[in-house]
Amino acid sequence: MRITTVGLDADDTLWHNESIFRLTQDRFRALMAEVAAADALDARLAEVERRNLALYGYGVKGFTLSMIETAMEITEAKAPARIIADILAAGREMLTHPVEPLPGVRPALADLAKDYRLVLITKGDLLHQEQKLAASGLGELFAAVEIVSEKDASTYSRVFARYGTGAGEAAMCGNSLRSDVLPALEAGAYAAHVPYPLTWAHELAEAPVGHPRFAELPSISALPEWVRGLS
Amino acid sequence: MRITTVGLDADDTLWHNESIFRLTQDRFRALMAEVAAADALDARLAEVERRNLALYGYGVKGFTLSMIETAMEITEAKAPARIIADILAAGREMLTHPVEPLPGVRPALADLAKDYRLVLITKGDLLHQEQKLAASGLGELFAAVEIVSEKDASTYSRVFARYGTGAGEAAMCGNSLRSDVLPALEAGAYAAHVPYPLTWAHELAEAPVGHPRFAELPSISALPEWVRGLS
Repeated sequence: MRITTVGLDADDTLWHNESIFRLTQDRFRALMAEVAAADALDARLAEVERRNLALYGYGVKGFTLSMIETAMEITEAKAPARIIADILAAGREMLTHPVEPLPGVRPALADLAKDYRLVLITKGDLLHQEQKLAASGLGELFAAVEIVSEKDASTYSRVFARYGTGAGEAAMCGNSLRSDVLPALEAGAYAAHVPYPLTWAHELAEAPVGHPRFAELPSISALPEWVRGLS
Repeated sequence: MRITTVGLDADDTLWHNESIFRLTQDRFRALMAEVAAADALDARLAEVERRNLALYGYGVKGFTLSMIETAMEITEAKAPARIIADILAAGREMLTHPVEPLPGVRPALADLAKDYRLVLITKGDLLHQEQKLAASGLGELFAAVEIVSEKDASTYSRVFARYGTGAGEAAMCGNSLRSDVLPALEAGAYAAHVPYPLTWAHELAEAPVGHPRFAELPSISALPEWVRGLS
């Protein structure tokens, strides 16, 4: 078996993302404290996000709109207007948040880039993901960048066919079992799970125990050795 | 000269877009009528959109956030909360607006697809552009779809190299001189301008009079003959 191409997820694999959403949600709770209980607010936001996912997709702009909608719903359209202005500001800050590679990311990618074609495969807002990649300084390590609206088996088949030599000669690495690991395995690729301490409820899934093309890695630093061992 | 690839813009070239933004802006004016004069509101919205463009990019979600921000600014955060709920609803309706190809689009594309590789090249929200293409029923006519955050000469060089045989053997068609015509010409491609009755102020530019690779076409129905005449 020959591996030519390594796909990498971006958010929470290369840099922090979910923690920034959680911090913003904490701020949203504080903003709304005078008009809504934290638990009820969290539950309503989760419901609004789920409802809007098919329409807004993934990313900060949709999340900002969902926070505003939640604030309207839970107060029966009586949220103080300054809360809305504060939610807009919180969304803008998420979009301009500094991007720093997670520990071990740069050396692991630099090592892999010597022998493999690296492809960034990520969901989210197109412009924001491009901006984060540029800010991370990791851009030149990637042979290709594919920002997609959904990660399913056909996404991985298409991307690995276009930028590599097919899913059968590719390995995917990411923090989400649901988005990075299971559909990549289904497409015929190898897949490594590198957990991030926080996972968005929407991304939770069961690990594929005993799958011959799957590995659970303690950190991205273990990725180069695992990929080389596949050949 | 051989032409292998035809690039097509989507919004206002294949289907209505600006007119939907204008209708939504009319609705925004009506919603805000009790708290803001129409002229001042329009000017403020244009200013907020311009300020947010680098952060939000193009598309409905950013426009919705900019309308909310405008409502907050112009009322000094005293906009009635129900207005915010109505702006959110207006944004959602833009995202679910029916998509119908403009007159002449389907026959022109079907004709071109027999002899050329068609590539859709469009700005905007990734998910929404994919949804509009699916809803239009035109998807199967395209060999590739590239949704980009900005349309400059390097975008066209990259896309025509990846999906065709380079910009020198490609023709681009769209309604925006600024985004579809001038940068495609700069990249070395041919370019045809098919005007749409409305143009967003941000997209206005001067036509490249007398340029040897440029044509102004009265409608997309004239595109197949023009492209065939280049070979």
